[in-house]
Amino acid sequence: MKTFWLSWVRVAAVASMAVSWTAPGFAQEPLPSWNDTAPKRAIVAFVERVTNQVSPDFVPPAERIATFDNDGTLWAEQPIYFQLVFALDRVKALAPEHPEWKDKEPFTSLLKGDLKGALAGGEPAIFQIMTVTHSGMTTDQFEKIVSDWVATARHPKSGKLYTEMVYQPMLELLAYLRANGFKTFIVSGGGIDFMRVFAERIYGIPPEQVIGSSGKLNFELRDGKPRLMKLPELDFNDDKVGKPVAIQTHIGRHPIAAFGNSDGDLQMLEWARQGAGVRFALIVHHTDAEREWAYDRKSPVGQLDKALDVAQVEGWTIVDMKNDWKRIFPFEGK
Amino acid sequence: MKTFWLSWVRVAAVASMAVSWTAPGFAQEPLPSWNDTAPKRAIVAFVERVTNQVSPDFVPPAERIATFDNDGTLWAEQPIYFQLVFALDRVKALAPEHPEWKDKEPFTSLLKGDLKGALAGGEPAIFQIMTVTHSGMTTDQFEKIVSDWVATARHPKSGKLYTEMVYQPMLELLAYLRANGFKTFIVSGGGIDFMRVFAERIYGIPPEQVIGSSGKLNFELRDGKPRLMKLPELDFNDDKVGKPVAIQTHIGRHPIAAFGNSDGDLQMLEWARQGAGVRFALIVHHTDAEREWAYDRKSPVGQLDKALDVAQVEGWTIVDMKNDWKRIFPFEGK
Repeated sequence: MKTFWLSWVRVAAVASMAVSWTAPGFAQEPLPSWNDTAPKRAIVAFVERVTNQVSPDFVPPAERIATFDNDGTLWAEQPIYFQLVFALDRVKALAPEHPEWKDKEPFTSLLKGDLKGALAGGEPAIFQIMTVTHSGMTTDQFEKIVSDWVATARHPKSGKLYTEMVYQPMLELLAYLRANGFKTFIVSGGGIDFMRVFAERIYGIPPEQVIGSSGKLNFELRDGKPRLMKLPELDFNDDKVGKPVAIQTHIGRHPIAAFGNSDGDLQMLEWARQGAGVRFALIVHHTDAEREWAYDRKSPVGQLDKALDVAQVEGWTIVDMKNDWKRIFPFEGK
Repeated sequence: MKTFWLSWVRVAAVASMAVSWTAPGFAQEPLPSWNDTAPKRAIVAFVERVTNQVSPDFVPPAERIATFDNDGTLWAEQPIYFQLVFALDRVKALAPEHPEWKDKEPFTSLLKGDLKGALAGGEPAIFQIMTVTHSGMTTDQFEKIVSDWVATARHPKSGKLYTEMVYQPMLELLAYLRANGFKTFIVSGGGIDFMRVFAERIYGIPPEQVIGSSGKLNFELRDGKPRLMKLPELDFNDDKVGKPVAIQTHIGRHPIAAFGNSDGDLQMLEWARQGAGVRFALIVHHTDAEREWAYDRKSPVGQLDKALDVAQVEGWTIVDMKNDWKRIFPFEGK
């Protein structure tokens, strides 16, 4: 199954090279996993307007910047954020080297298998777990650890690799935008070093177009060889008001389209909508309890409350996963 | 004159689209403003090795990352860094709104035309000058201010626009690397928001590939419209050990080639040289007092001392501007 959608991405990439920058689309219908409902029509209409050279809304390819949240927008985020699962798995793997964790929360609960107890400490507990699992090694070592984890860890509900829990319609959307001259970026609250390990392979987004939260780094020479150590200190929190700041720092221009699913994406969507010309903002609303999960205003993971209100008032595009997507995951049969 | 080299860059860009990724070069000889001496030969040999698909040193296009310092590497930096000239000009322009500067160093000296006196306060004085001229406005306002300045301010020695004080051989090198599938980045101690205003036009490097020093930003809504305010606080100093950190943060992979001219670039060059496979490190040595400036170990601007020692010991490529470059600035006759 995995092979199927990976090859789809490759086919789309090759197709994009053959298509001229301003040609509106594929020979076949774009976005095949999207129903022919309002969101798909809005996407296609937007892309056709900004790529039509005789349209007053034409945008040169260099300015066709599109930013995507990751958790809940490109891949799933239930029952808990996948990077947190990674961190919990790492705590277990590292426990033999840390006998002191037996009497130290949140590790004590965690190692007894009591996740709820471990996370009862709230953000400080999560921060402690993230710190011990995401620092104290070089960037190269961390990359290897993540790489090994994504190759083996499996989602508790689907039994699939986490990198298979991506949304087929969003993969098609990424490819469709790129085929139309867009440069696609991830702008996520997730860890920048974490996502970069797999983003190119699963989304076709190279490391330099992946933006996320980060810890401080320290350059040092060890035996005359330079290396970057990951320090136990947050450098940047790429969430909420952090997202427009990160977009300015990493990209240096306004996106003309942005895609998110939670209140953490609100400011990014507002930022993308700012400025002259046609802009596009889309929210993925998780409404499908059967094929995926249904959650929004009260969910501790991927809470969508204020951003849903703003989207409705401002007329942003809202994807109703249950009704607008034919297929959710690549591993589902068509 | 300006028209000439701008059109050269465009021609090179168009040529690069027509050339296949792995074809080693142009129909014409590459790097025409370089003499046929060791640096040019080393560059061409490196590019041919990493782009030759049957070579054991072949590097896929996605990994062909090249990083360039800006001041003294892509454009000149004498008699003082151009961004500092911008800041000094801004102090003069802003003085009427700041009557208190009459009795406050470094502004008092500066407004009397006593640059030496103003800079006698060292780094704190420069920091004060940079702060008042680079914060307290939105990112869009700052972009407009820089844009107006580069369109009018002229270099005291040449009388040219600062954006004309770029090195013709380096423009050719950027285009040659891109024509061979490289992605070119600026990694400079200069201000990221400052350089992005002109980097795409003069170097063909888009904002998202420009990395530099930055101040903190604050996202805010004013009359319901989002904006980013530039705060009077340094966020990141992209110099020395900061350069590999910035490369990891913004690019997320090792450059395979790096280009600099001063001790501020040493760690970037060491970082690029690290790792398996063929790597390339080059230093521009300012040796031409007649056509440009001659300075190195004792210069307060662009000091090249320790990095020159390391380059000699490690066998990095060192450009002797006087002997290796046929032409320095685009406005010189061929």
